[in-house]
Amino acid sequence: MNYGIVGLGLMGASLASRLMELGHNEVYGFDINPLTIQIAKDRNYITEGSTNPEELLDRCQIIILALYPTQIQPWIEKYQSSIQVGSILMDISGVKSNIVKPCQEILKYGLELISIHPMCGRESRGIEQADPTIFDDANFIVVPTEKNTHSSILLAEQLGSYLGCTRVATLTPLEHDRMIGFLSQLTHVIAVSLMNTHDNSHLVEYTGDSFRDLTRIASINEDLWSELFILNKDILLDETNQFIDAITHFRDVLQAEDIEEMKRLFIQSTERRQLFNK
Amino acid sequence: MNYGIVGLGLMGASLASRLMELGHNEVYGFDINPLTIQIAKDRNYITEGSTNPEELLDRCQIIILALYPTQIQPWIEKYQSSIQVGSILMDISGVKSNIVKPCQEILKYGLELISIHPMCGRESRGIEQADPTIFDDANFIVVPTEKNTHSSILLAEQLGSYLGCTRVATLTPLEHDRMIGFLSQLTHVIAVSLMNTHDNSHLVEYTGDSFRDLTRIASINEDLWSELFILNKDILLDETNQFIDAITHFRDVLQAEDIEEMKRLFIQSTERRQLFNK
Repeated sequence: MNYGIVGLGLMGASLASRLMELGHNEVYGFDINPLTIQIAKDRNYITEGSTNPEELLDRCQIIILALYPTQIQPWIEKYQSSIQVGSILMDISGVKSNIVKPCQEILKYGLELISIHPMCGRESRGIEQADPTIFDDANFIVVPTEKNTHSSILLAEQLGSYLGCTRVATLTPLEHDRMIGFLSQLTHVIAVSLMNTHDNSHLVEYTGDSFRDLTRIASINEDLWSELFILNKDILLDETNQFIDAITHFRDVLQAEDIEEMKRLFIQSTERRQLFNK
Repeated sequence: MNYGIVGLGLMGASLASRLMELGHNEVYGFDINPLTIQIAKDRNYITEGSTNPEELLDRCQIIILALYPTQIQPWIEKYQSSIQVGSILMDISGVKSNIVKPCQEILKYGLELISIHPMCGRESRGIEQADPTIFDDANFIVVPTEKNTHSSILLAEQLGSYLGCTRVATLTPLEHDRMIGFLSQLTHVIAVSLMNTHDNSHLVEYTGDSFRDLTRIASINEDLWSELFILNKDILLDETNQFIDAITHFRDVLQAEDIEEMKRLFIQSTERRQLFNK
């Protein structure tokens, strides 16, 4: 089966590059920027590419949409007439509930969209940062709905393993978005807010690994992440409010010098964190 | 000069072990636990040790107090009569303003306390976790007061380099505690509060490196850190309140779907974080 990769940013170009590494002869790439297409061809990330999807789409049986979340539905509306009946579309959007079902509803007869999330994004962006090894050892989530066939779910799971992801799981859109809301989005809110707490440039020379680890994800693609946050707004607000409650409680415990409760909180966090050791 | 290391926990035993590695013939170790002394001797971390400081203290010219912060002043009161006039004491406490000056005030004539902070603590505790390499590439802060002589400040700075720390800096107690309040203590409050936000054990299998990095320091020695937090209470409360303000602002921006302000916050955090790249 031939792949079409739509959007050759960090994720799309990494995907294309990994597929080419695996020996595929036909990986087609699409991007609005002709320079990006040229780089992808020069680096052998794709067999052929175009800024106009209509030119090559009919050669692809699996089309992976590596677009910003809000671009997915407009892209499908505009270009699905050029896609062969029987093809499978996959989106790799970082949020699902508000993306997958609306897109599935507008699909023409004979197309299927199965949603996937390779959890291996980076703080950087663009084809220059593409790297096929980001899939190695990553989590790969398949997010089916009642519109999906058993065979497309299986195909998506196999793609995850094939790309090199070691943990392939299946979640509903809501389960996915709750998991992402806590593990990824809330942690980004925290890192961004910590860097924004006050000017801290005078502290650079004293910084150790803990602070660097905690704030690495404060480097963030503002266009992508504002979309991801707004699209998962209710869940992320809930998680953020729960975290604010937890840290406000800690602040109150410190204010009151309630050492027993402080120790209980430390012991609880230590016990919970032990589960997450690799 | 002979060293005496008081308290052979993670930090004290690592210090002793590094000094022995460097070829010192006389490194004396003190601990309340006889088993700890035995382990230190078996592993060649110390030349000789005792549970009773009075036995060996008069052989030491540099005495490093690797005790819990609240134990430092009582230890000095109890044992300083056994210390040779002309000796230098150093404490490695993680907070300074509420420790150093009270200790300096009770010192007998002929002793000097110069405060140091090798910034290389770990999430673990105890002699079993000792490791002389923790000093390599670490920050080492010397924290003098007006009671200190030029020669003892120089001695402390030289010790930092000698132990293998690559960045040796000098700060006042207040500067030190403000720096630690933001870079270390607030980050621990955040990691602990994130783990305590809600039960998250069902999410273990989906966790990526970002979440692991951010919560590593949620594993915490509850006895030590409750002391460190209470002793730096005013500064840590101020930092925590500023962070709560920052994340509450982010929450409000998300609630209002104020995309322009959200992007501004992302861009600011990204720019600030770039300074901290190694």
